[in-house]
Amino acid sequence: MKESEMIFGIHAIVEALEANREIDKVLVKKDLSSELSNRLFLALKDHPMVQVQRVPVQKLNSYTLKNHEGAIALVSKIEYQKLSGIVPAVYEEGKDPLIVMLDGVTDVRNFGSIARTCECAGADAVVIPIKGGAMVNADAMRTSAGALNSIPVCKERSLTEAIRFARNSGLKVIAVAKGAHKMYTDVELSGPIALVFADDKTDVSADVLRSCDVVVSVPTRGAIDSLNVSVAAGVVLYEAMKQRVN
Amino acid sequence: MKESEMIFGIHAIVEALEANREIDKVLVKKDLSSELSNRLFLALKDHPMVQVQRVPVQKLNSYTLKNHEGAIALVSKIEYQKLSGIVPAVYEEGKDPLIVMLDGVTDVRNFGSIARTCECAGADAVVIPIKGGAMVNADAMRTSAGALNSIPVCKERSLTEAIRFARNSGLKVIAVAKGAHKMYTDVELSGPIALVFADDKTDVSADVLRSCDVVVSVPTRGAIDSLNVSVAAGVVLYEAMKQRVN
Repeated sequence: MKESEMIFGIHAIVEALEANREIDKVLVKKDLSSELSNRLFLALKDHPMVQVQRVPVQKLNSYTLKNHEGAIALVSKIEYQKLSGIVPAVYEEGKDPLIVMLDGVTDVRNFGSIARTCECAGADAVVIPIKGGAMVNADAMRTSAGALNSIPVCKERSLTEAIRFARNSGLKVIAVAKGAHKMYTDVELSGPIALVFADDKTDVSADVLRSCDVVVSVPTRGAIDSLNVSVAAGVVLYEAMKQRVN
Repeated sequence: MKESEMIFGIHAIVEALEANREIDKVLVKKDLSSELSNRLFLALKDHPMVQVQRVPVQKLNSYTLKNHEGAIALVSKIEYQKLSGIVPAVYEEGKDPLIVMLDGVTDVRNFGSIARTCECAGADAVVIPIKGGAMVNADAMRTSAGALNSIPVCKERSLTEAIRFARNSGLKVIAVAKGAHKMYTDVELSGPIALVFADDKTDVSADVLRSCDVVVSVPTRGAIDSLNVSVAAGVVLYEAMKQRVN
């Protein structure tokens, strides 16, 4: 990770939070506790969308030789948007929303590749949760071939909450998971929809599955039970593209 | 790259060549010329499928601190097969061959991901050329999720030669390239076919394009003019899977 993507030291991080800079995550030394650190934790409380992770000091030292005061912030390369803003805007354009939601896709290259496919297939936004979302770092930007500069990325408190919002907004929410009896070719992919894809190692989590309207799978013939998530997303999004005319 | 994937030193490489070990590439110090090196070049002449690349000595030193005598061989993780053996065997099973050919796909993660998709979509083999093919190294194996242990990989002298063989064997050869007017959904993907995919940065090379029966493209809507090659391969292979019943 390049240093330009990080903010070192408590003072600097508090300032960045107060200036509402897009911070993906703050790494905090495991046993950090001081008057200064209290300022940081107070500022973080005001920014619940920023993930906080306790790490051994060695991890922080591996990022920089500078004095980090026990805290490093990882800065996002993009500005996040709100799903609650995107969906009505798409409807107002007279189009049916096509939203992609990612469950546990932490690999930045997979994330970047999916963003690229979303842009190519005409999706309106990519939704990631605060916890278990990929960092939007330089590798993600590169793999996206620039798509992350144009397709809106929404970081939401939780996927189930985002799914509830989508369903309340008239979207059919379709999860793509392993082993579902219904195939992705057996569902209507036109109209307002959200597609949920999960990392192929962890699959869609149980509470997310329960929140969706339909669960489908992408069939496989050989010994391997799933495609890579970025390929699966491509297959289903292009099937949707064929069915959609807006 | 792990040391176990490499052979250091001229004697060891000559022995490996004579034992017909699967070597992807031999890196040779730029100005290497000695009686010993003549033995190496003689052995390489007998193995035209092994790519030879002249590199600065610093490149060799970056691989190992051992005495490499000016030459390092990169060993393949798999045994290559011959397209001329695969195609008749598939016909004999009463099936229509589905072959995937890769033009300039050197990224090992893309290559591994495509191998995985091929295995999932029921393709019979992946063809790569000696020059401009990906190394089948540990990263490729990992990204393939094990598919490279089961799907045959054919390393051929050149793609145009492989295409000629495929056409002579009754396969329709379909290239997937940028900007073709015909869409991948406009062609018949059942029957005996070979699909040619190229790295999205370089696209399908002119002589390969000329050798194919049809050229199609995967449409894109946004500002980016192509999908990542492993995603494009997934989209087209799954369209083929829908059309094929064998």
